[in-house]
Amino acid sequence: MKSHRKELLFNLPERMGFVNITPQVETAVRESGVREGLVLVNAMHITASVFINDDERGLHQDYRDWLERLAPHAPVAQYRHNDTGEDNADAHLKRQVMGREVVVAITGGRLDFGPWEQIFYGEFDGRRDKRVLVKIIGE
Amino acid sequence: MKSHRKELLFNLPERMGFVNITPQVETAVRESGVREGLVLVNAMHITASVFINDDERGLHQDYRDWLERLAPHAPVAQYRHNDTGEDNADAHLKRQVMGREVVVAITGGRLDFGPWEQIFYGEFDGRRDKRVLVKIIGE
Amino acid sequence: MKSHRKELLFNLPERMGFVNITPQVETAVRESGVREGLVLVNAMHITASVFINDDERGLHQDYRDWLERLAPHAPVAQYRHNDTGEDNADAHLKRQVMGREVVVAITGGRLDFGPWEQIFYGEFDGRRDKRVLVKIIGE
Repeated sequence: MKSHRKELLFNLPERMGFVNITPQVETAVRESGVREGLVLVNAMHITASVFINDDERGLHQDYRDWLERLAPHAPVAQYRHNDTGEDNADAHLKRQVMGREVVVAITGGRLDFGPWEQIFYGEFDGRRDKRVLVKIIGE
Repeated sequence: MKSHRKELLFNLPERMGFVNITPQVETAVRESGVREGLVLVNAMHITASVFINDDERGLHQDYRDWLERLAPHAPVAQYRHNDTGEDNADAHLKRQVMGREVVVAITGGRLDFGPWEQIFYGEFDGRRDKRVLVKIIGE
Repeated sequence: MKSHRKELLFNLPERMGFVNITPQVETAVRESGVREGLVLVNAMHITASVFINDDERGLHQDYRDWLERLAPHAPVAQYRHNDTGEDNADAHLKRQVMGREVVVAITGGRLDFGPWEQIFYGEFDGRRDKRVLVKIIGE
């Protein structure tokens, strides 16, 4: 069994944003030499997500609006987590809707994807350094 | 390490629906010959889900009603994704709540499940061909 | 390839609650002898979750309040699942928001975590025996 590990780095200029990381994950799969296996891609921070969906600007605006309705940032005093001095309780909630991680099959040395699947980093508490872990196992 | 890959095909008659795919996944596990490992089951389309829950008709109605409240289909003009000519923005949102994939342990050649766990395909934009990927690794 | 399997047992005194199970998962990883691989941690019951987030009391109160708003327990008659005699339909919904499982990388024999990641068991229909499955594969 082979394994390969890589970290991706982010520092988004806004509180909420989405970044297509499919090319970086494909690169990691190539580097691994794994032909058949699984790749785990997960946010290493608890106010961020990794998810798979469409690379379409309008949809990303819909995600922003919808998540803000489901778990509004303001007023920050509505959340007990923010009593600790933080203002990011909403980001911990939004991340649960979008998920922490994806697991993707590797077949023939490539991401085994449907026609529109793209991997995204989802940031809900930006303007700080964050990391994503890519872990590959297989043969 | 062994690996095995299989696609399941769907074309549901309604916009939203749930299909119990546990028997097909069990068949794939048997075909793989894997005794100890993991099986990844994921929607290959971004308006569909794979999830694990109860095979109970009333609960499925509750999921339909609840998802429609969380992310209503109509009016379609409320979503910027639908400015592209699509009418399925709500399906991209519903899929995030229910999830893209499940990973299930294989122990002794069988799905290692609790008493009520069943695997479902969840469709949120039906009446078209869709696929689910089953990928098994182990020994 | 090595594999290792372990069950964790729970019986929470309240309907909803969160338990940090990171130490038990770390113990299972050590017992497995796996240095590079993946660990799957999943609820074996369909009214419970395993998720990764912060071990902060205020945040857990925020999760309780938010999940109760998204999928209220009462009135129980609002859910068709409860027509079967159950009163836990809301628990099946809450579990979908928080997720069934996490997959965590094992690197150098340890959980490969970001600075604040902790694994939680999330209970939404407590006062009964429940189980979590830990399955480890790797080398």
